[in-house]
Amino acid sequence: MRLLRRSWAGLLHQRHRLLTTTSSRRSNGEREKEKEQQQRQKWTHTGSRTERMLYAAFWAGGLTLGYHWLSHRSHLTQVLLEEQKEEQKEEQQEAVARLWHATLRPELPTYKADQVEQHNCPENRIWVTYGLGVYDVTDFADNHPGGDKILMAAGSAIDPFWAIYQQHNTLEVLELLEGFRIGNLEGPLVASVDDELGSPWAQEPPRHALLKPASKRPFNAEPPIGLLAEQFYTPNELFYVRNHLPVPVISPEDYELEIEGGGKEQTLSLERIKALPKHSWSGARLCDLLRQQGVQPDEAKHVIFEGADLDPTSHPYGASIPLAKALDPRGDVILAYEMNDEPLSRDHGYPIRVIVPGTVGARNVKWLTRIVVADRESDSHWQQNDYKGFSPSTDWDTVDFGKSEAIQAMPVTSAICTPQAGSRVKVEQDEAKGEGEGHITVRGYAWSGGGRKIVRVDLTNDEGLSWHVAELEQEDSPDGRHYGWSLWTARLPVSQAQRRAGDVEIWAKAVDSAYNVQPEKFEHIWNLRGVLANAYHKVKVKIV
Amino acid sequence: MRLLRRSWAGLLHQRHRLLTTTSSRRSNGEREKEKEQQQRQKWTHTGSRTERMLYAAFWAGGLTLGYHWLSHRSHLTQVLLEEQKEEQKEEQQEAVARLWHATLRPELPTYKADQVEQHNCPENRIWVTYGLGVYDVTDFADNHPGGDKILMAAGSAIDPFWAIYQQHNTLEVLELLEGFRIGNLEGPLVASVDDELGSPWAQEPPRHALLKPASKRPFNAEPPIGLLAEQFYTPNELFYVRNHLPVPVISPEDYELEIEGGGKEQTLSLERIKALPKHSWSGARLCDLLRQQGVQPDEAKHVIFEGADLDPTSHPYGASIPLAKALDPRGDVILAYEMNDEPLSRDHGYPIRVIVPGTVGARNVKWLTRIVVADRESDSHWQQNDYKGFSPSTDWDTVDFGKSEAIQAMPVTSAICTPQAGSRVKVEQDEAKGEGEGHITVRGYAWSGGGRKIVRVDLTNDEGLSWHVAELEQEDSPDGRHYGWSLWTARLPVSQAQRRAGDVEIWAKAVDSAYNVQPEKFEHIWNLRGVLANAYHKVKVKIV
Repeated sequence: MRLLRRSWAGLLHQRHRLLTTTSSRRSNGEREKEKEQQQRQKWTHTGSRTERMLYAAFWAGGLTLGYHWLSHRSHLTQVLLEEQKEEQKEEQQEAVARLWHATLRPELPTYKADQVEQHNCPENRIWVTYGLGVYDVTDFADNHPGGDKILMAAGSAIDPFWAIYQQHNTLEVLELLEGFRIGNLEGPLVASVDDELGSPWAQEPPRHALLKPASKRPFNAEPPIGLLAEQFYTPNELFYVRNHLPVPVISPEDYELEIEGGGKEQTLSLERIKALPKHSWSGARLCDLLRQQGVQPDEAKHVIFEGADLDPTSHPYGASIPLAKALDPRGDVILAYEMNDEPLSRDHGYPIRVIVPGTVGARNVKWLTRIVVADRESDSHWQQNDYKGFSPSTDWDTVDFGKSEAIQAMPVTSAICTPQAGSRVKVEQDEAKGEGEGHITVRGYAWSGGGRKIVRVDLTNDEGLSWHVAELEQEDSPDGRHYGWSLWTARLPVSQAQRRAGDVEIWAKAVDSAYNVQPEKFEHIWNLRGVLANAYHKVKVKIV
Repeated sequence: MRLLRRSWAGLLHQRHRLLTTTSSRRSNGEREKEKEQQQRQKWTHTGSRTERMLYAAFWAGGLTLGYHWLSHRSHLTQVLLEEQKEEQKEEQQEAVARLWHATLRPELPTYKADQVEQHNCPENRIWVTYGLGVYDVTDFADNHPGGDKILMAAGSAIDPFWAIYQQHNTLEVLELLEGFRIGNLEGPLVASVDDELGSPWAQEPPRHALLKPASKRPFNAEPPIGLLAEQFYTPNELFYVRNHLPVPVISPEDYELEIEGGGKEQTLSLERIKALPKHSWSGARLCDLLRQQGVQPDEAKHVIFEGADLDPTSHPYGASIPLAKALDPRGDVILAYEMNDEPLSRDHGYPIRVIVPGTVGARNVKWLTRIVVADRESDSHWQQNDYKGFSPSTDWDTVDFGKSEAIQAMPVTSAICTPQAGSRVKVEQDEAKGEGEGHITVRGYAWSGGGRKIVRVDLTNDEGLSWHVAELEQEDSPDGRHYGWSLWTARLPVSQAQRRAGDVEIWAKAVDSAYNVQPEKFEHIWNLRGVLANAYHKVKVKIV
């Protein structure tokens, strides 16, 4: 969480400069404004203005990695109680910030919606609303990390946009926004109309109560970490969900997949995809489809995917992968229609999603509607300006997304699932050894991208003076095709001095089959997008 | 250097224990002794007894990675002078240790060679000679890191074995050995007869004077690091050499390559290999040869290579790689007969070597004589008990080579080539900035295994408070096939405080296309074999 916020926190320090900066890119905004305003209408008129977004960083390293979990009801109460405490603290802080724009500020003037609408270009000043607040963001527009996108909300509500571009929903950004407050929006608060027909969120699927939402709209959730490593396979309804946009509604009869490549275009029905050979991952192999299409290895460099999920401007979610990965039978790229032998759920991409094993989740496009073999990468926001890594000293003033590579294969990572941070851990006595000799048992998971196998997980509870190798549980996959996670268990000896001290910090690090190892500290790999956070997982516990 | 020694240094601390340990594996030794003694004869009778070995750890990270260099004579004198100083210091220390076994110790008895020969099994005690020294190693044999191999020298000279297994030639090991000294070997010192016909080292090829030998026999050498990053391509005669054994002599007319797989065996001449399509790396693709052989993707898991270079027991150097890598046309495994359009030199594997790009050098078998498609890995010493990684707490008492994966693809690494450690660096004044504002220019290389591209190199000279992204020079290779190195240049600002302090430490870290990053410190990735040393390269310099 802290990591992601830093990027916006930097902006706060620059505020006095922002407020005196002259604008230079206004003409763009004007040209695009009209078109965008039309597209925006269906959103702003459906009451999504009052949407509330909770943002939480994808959890260190595990963010976009696949994991699996099977419920063990006996542990639930205890684990959930501990997690609730942490959550409550964070939620309280967020709640305070959230109240600002939901609160009337009587010292400021009140504006009607049609007054706000007139301030829709730099010449007339750029006003936006968020909840009850009216804000003049003219002097900020040029420094907006998301670029010209801010102009899409000019004269209108930013609520639907912030519902999509989640990075706004942090204390720091809310604080930054409140600094631009110039008034209050007249009129009754629009009640939540999520369930009204026509809201983009009206037809979200039902979800399992145990999935912890990190953000509700779009829905991003996972089972509690304390239960994660209990079992190797995870039931579908508890499998983590990462959505970027509202979940589309697709009937299998109407489903169509367009595909461009091999010098032609065609449209496939669900039946025709299911007629292709069924791969073990329960889907058709993309390489079979591309071969059928006549795609040649050298005809292009990328395969672009588009989903049926749309942003407020009706642009679909999009991503691309290298053509070589798509064409390689050992690359195992699948058009999946089943997951653990059940039809794909709506949250996981019904009726068809791409599975690009070993590759960042953002390229595993759900609700797939279009495949294009092309010489360029996808031009979507998420391919071009989102999932990329940067040097720790790169900030929103100096970042150039065009100079960084889109994340594809992911680096090696691991996490400690039990014991959890802050918990009290009982030392297990070692019978064979002397009085007071004992150990603690630590469990977790490890994973690496690109099909690389986890070959070792090392644990220490004395800051690296001694390391202990964990036992691994993993699938027996062919070389270079280790796509699943590895669970691990380690027994760490606890010295008498550590028992007396009471506090112990446990570190975990994994090594993959290319002998890549996790870096020690987050600060040397920190990046403004907060992604790729694969430093050692460190957990402080109390020894009892 | 320090890293590799630690494994043996640990043994020194255990000496009192070693000396009282009872032996348990002596029967093995007896059974194997006779056979081995026969094989040993041609070695011990050729005067290689007086061989002197210099050992230096493969240089951090760059050890088995390919690099390239083109000479710039103008810089030579200065750079070489600086390196000479460091070398001289190390050589003096080694020279002292080396004198021990080359020195008569008058307080000890003198033995003839035939007396030593009688002590060739545990029952009669195990004696060995090294130079002038006679040693009783009976109580050490069970704890020998190399296992039973020590018995191959029982009753005889260890000199030829230490010439092969270079890890012995450290101060610590020489110290350990001298502790077992029981006498002096009678007879005149055998003069160096390396050039005599019959010595395994008699027919080593001539080498360029600029190659710095880290060990002379087997020959392991590289150009001076200060010149390494000067140019992207390296002339063949200055390209680094890593040999494990004496260089074999092979005439092109007599050259034969045996290949087993696809249910048959055949023998290929050099002409037949050259008749296969010629790949850009100047050789035949292994996948073409295996296809011609009828090898099926599922028929086995590994491809074993054997070289013409033989150890003292006449076993060839051997290694294996996954069959999937060998069969993949995009894996680019080559039977190379040319290097930069010239025929392969003898040091680099004439007439045929395997190039397994992205994979540790140890699997790129030179002087290739045999290819076997098999369900098991190579059973050679180098595949089974050498190039593997371990947890930092694994020592020679606890190590189980069978439980660790043989290194194949290598992790990401980088090195600073200029300025060199300890050098005085002049600050370049920044015209545009104020008085005293300046920077230093740093150059180096970066590389990653598995065809992964270097996407970024970060430099810091303030311990990571600020990072500076280097400019990269690299080939434009297809996705997943980035086999060459990347050269980089960075300009690091130097603050007035740093100028006053005088000392600055520069750190470099590289990031590859799977966003794997180098770990910060060597101590958390240290392993008893000293390999995979890819932590940040840190160089202290003086600012002037």
